[in-house]
Amino acid sequence: MMLEGKVVVAQGGGPTAVINQSLVGVVLESRKFNQITKVYGAINGVSGIINEDFLDLTQETTHNLEQVAITPSSALFSTREKPDEAYCKEIFHVFKAHDVRYFFYIGGNDSADTVRIVNQQAEQSDYEFRAIHIPKTIDNDLLMNDHTPGYGSAARFVAQAFIGLNLDNRALPGVHIGVVMGRNAGFLTAASSIAGKYPDDGPHLIYLPERPFIMDNFLHDVNETYQKYGRCLIAVSEGIQDENGIPIITKLINQEIDAHGNMQLSGTGALGDLLTQQIKQKLNIQRVRSDTLGYLQRSFMGCVSDVDQHEAREVGEKAAQFAIWHNIDGSITINRTGDYSVDYKMAPLLEVAAKTKLMPDNFINERGNNVTEAFRYYLNPLLGSNMPTASMLRAPLASKILKR
Amino acid sequence: MMLEGKVVVAQGGGPTAVINQSLVGVVLESRKFNQITKVYGAINGVSGIINEDFLDLTQETTHNLEQVAITPSSALFSTREKPDEAYCKEIFHVFKAHDVRYFFYIGGNDSADTVRIVNQQAEQSDYEFRAIHIPKTIDNDLLMNDHTPGYGSAARFVAQAFIGLNLDNRALPGVHIGVVMGRNAGFLTAASSIAGKYPDDGPHLIYLPERPFIMDNFLHDVNETYQKYGRCLIAVSEGIQDENGIPIITKLINQEIDAHGNMQLSGTGALGDLLTQQIKQKLNIQRVRSDTLGYLQRSFMGCVSDVDQHEAREVGEKAAQFAIWHNIDGSITINRTGDYSVDYKMAPLLEVAAKTKLMPDNFINERGNNVTEAFRYYLNPLLGSNMPTASMLRAPLASKILKR
Repeated sequence: MMLEGKVVVAQGGGPTAVINQSLVGVVLESRKFNQITKVYGAINGVSGIINEDFLDLTQETTHNLEQVAITPSSALFSTREKPDEAYCKEIFHVFKAHDVRYFFYIGGNDSADTVRIVNQQAEQSDYEFRAIHIPKTIDNDLLMNDHTPGYGSAARFVAQAFIGLNLDNRALPGVHIGVVMGRNAGFLTAASSIAGKYPDDGPHLIYLPERPFIMDNFLHDVNETYQKYGRCLIAVSEGIQDENGIPIITKLINQEIDAHGNMQLSGTGALGDLLTQQIKQKLNIQRVRSDTLGYLQRSFMGCVSDVDQHEAREVGEKAAQFAIWHNIDGSITINRTGDYSVDYKMAPLLEVAAKTKLMPDNFINERGNNVTEAFRYYLNPLLGSNMPTASMLRAPLASKILKR
Repeated sequence: MMLEGKVVVAQGGGPTAVINQSLVGVVLESRKFNQITKVYGAINGVSGIINEDFLDLTQETTHNLEQVAITPSSALFSTREKPDEAYCKEIFHVFKAHDVRYFFYIGGNDSADTVRIVNQQAEQSDYEFRAIHIPKTIDNDLLMNDHTPGYGSAARFVAQAFIGLNLDNRALPGVHIGVVMGRNAGFLTAASSIAGKYPDDGPHLIYLPERPFIMDNFLHDVNETYQKYGRCLIAVSEGIQDENGIPIITKLINQEIDAHGNMQLSGTGALGDLLTQQIKQKLNIQRVRSDTLGYLQRSFMGCVSDVDQHEAREVGEKAAQFAIWHNIDGSITINRTGDYSVDYKMAPLLEVAAKTKLMPDNFINERGNNVTEAFRYYLNPLLGSNMPTASMLRAPLASKILKR
C-alpha cells in the first residue's frame, strides 16, 4: 500500500494572499512520511516541471517555510501556461524520470484540468501516481466548494477598501466608482457590500458579471442615488457584460488575449474611466472619480483573513494526507458544515476542472444592482476576525444664529 | 489672560488615515478648559462655517470620539473650497456672532493660508482670537515640518502595496507600473522603495515630480532593467512632469481643473495606461500592466502607522494647549529631535501657508530614477511598528535528470 517516491508541488494562475499557506501545508505534511523520498517545488508552475526547474524543499528550513507561509503571492512563482495533451505528456515524462509519485497543483479551475489530464496519462500507462488539485482563487468560482482559499483575504481587502472609499466619498461628495477583479463571477465585487454600516453608507450600487449591464439602467440608478444622498459609491466588476455577454470593456479598446483565450481585464484603468466619462457626459455630475483596485486585491502585504489563512494551510495538509495515507486522487474541496465550521473532502477532478461557479440567484437583488443579506451572511465568517469598522460622529447640530 | 469663548475645529482638503486623531486631540483637550464654553465641529470645512453647520462636539461621548479617531477620512467631512478675502470675512462674521475665540483648521498648505487670512481679519478688527493650523497631508509637502501627519500611514500603504506588487511581478514576470499620489512632491512615491528586501526586489525604478520625466530615458531604463531581471517594477508619481514642468498626464486628455487651479491627477488610470502603451509599442514587451493606487492611499481602512496615529493625536492636543494656555497663533510643526523622537513647535503661518516642500536632493539618486539610502533612513521610523516583510524560499535547486 505504501507508494514510495517524490512529491512535486506547484502553484498556477494568479497569486493570492494565502496560496503559500497551502504550499507550506503540503511541504510540511509530506515531509512527515517515510515513503516520501524528496519534496520538490516546481518553479513557475507547469513550465518548471517540463524544464526540470525544481527547488528541493526537503532542504528548506521549517522556520523559513513559516515565514513564506505568511507572505502573499506565489513563492514558487506562477505561470499562465495552459497545458494541452502533448504538454501534459512532457510533464508525465519528467515525473517518471524523477520517480515522482505525488503531484500537488495549487490553482484554479484551469490548474484542476491540468491535474486531470496528467492523471489520465498516468492511468493509461499503468504508472502508480497520485495527482491532487488544491483549490486557490480570489474569484471564488470553483464548483463543489463553499468557497475557495484566497477569496476571504481578497474579499477583506475589497471590504476595507470600500469602507475607506465610502468615508472619502462622504467627506468629498460626488460619484465614485471602484472597479473590482472577477471575470465571470461577482463574489469579489460583492464583498464591497460589507462596507455598509450606517444607513446611508455605500456602496449604493453593485454591478456583477452575473447580470447584464445596461448602460441606461446604470445611469438611471446612479442619478437616483445621487439625487437621494448627494453622492454615490459604486462597485463594478471588471467582467461586467452586456445583454449579449460581450464584456463592456471590449467596447473600448483592443484588449490583449492570454494563453487561455481570456481577454485582459486587469492592469488598466480603462473601464473605470469609461464609466466616469459616461456619468459626466450624460448626468452632468462634476465630481466623478474611479479607482481600479487592481493587483493589490490579490497580493497586498498585510491584509489577510485569519480564517482564510487557516483554511489555506489545511487544504494543503489534507491534500498530502489524502494522497499519501489514503491513496486518493482528486480535488480538495471546502464544505461549510456549521455556522461557522468547515470540513474538507475529495471531489472528482472532472467536477471541478475547467468549470466556473457563479453567484447564486439568492445572493443578487431583483434589479441586479446590489447583493442580498443572504450573501452578506455567507461572506461574513470568511473575512476573519478583527474586521475593522468605521465610526461617525453623532453629536447634535448647534443652533444657527445668523441664518435661523 | 483667560480668553473665554467657543472653539471651532474643521478639516480641509483630502482625507488621511489619521486626520480624525488630530480632530479628537483638539476636542478632548479643549473640553478640559473651563474657559471653553463649547467645542463646535464645522461640517465640510470652511463652507460649514459660513453656513453655520456646526456639530456640538461638547455633547459627543469620549468613547465614540475614540472610535472616530481610529476611523480614516474626515469625520467632519471636507471641502475643496479655497476662501478668498471676502469668504474669510464671512467666516469671521460667523465667528463673532457665535463668540468663537479659537479656530483650529486641520489641513494642508491651502488650509494654512485660510487660517492666516482669517487671523489677519481678527487682528484688523481688534477681536481677540486664536487661529491655529494643524498639519495634515499624505503628500508630506509642508515646510517647517520634518514630516506631516497622514504621510506615515499613506507611506505604509504604498510600501505594503509595492511589497505585494513586487511578489506578484516576480511570480508572473513582465513590466508593472504602480502610479502613486503626489502632485509636486515625490515623498509618497518614494515610499515604494521600502518594498525592496532581497537584492533583485523592485521597485527597480522610481520616478518623482522633482525630476523631469524624459520618455526616452524612461524607456531606456525600463528596457535595461527588463533585460537584467526579466521583469521590471516601476513606481511613478501621478505628478511627473516634462522638462518644461508640464504634467505628463496633460499630454493625454483634457483634465478637470479644481477650485485651487489644480489639475485632476487622481481618480483615473490614464497615466498608467499611457506609460503601458509606450512600453508595449516602443520596447515590444508583451506583459505590461499598471495599477493606479488611487484613493485607497489616503482612506484604506486598517493600514495605519502607529507612530503616525500617535503624532496626529499629539498635534491636535498641542494645538489646543498652545492656543488656550499660551495664547499663541500659528501652525503646529513636527520636528525630529532624535532617532527616533519628535517635538512640536509653533511656526508663523506665513512660513507654512501656500508653500510646498519638495524632496531634498540627497533623497534622490543622480540619474533621477530612484531614491537614496538617506531617504529610506528618513522614512523608516514613520512607517510605525510591525511593518510586515516578505520572505522567499531559499532551498537549493534539485539536479536535472533529462536536461543536464
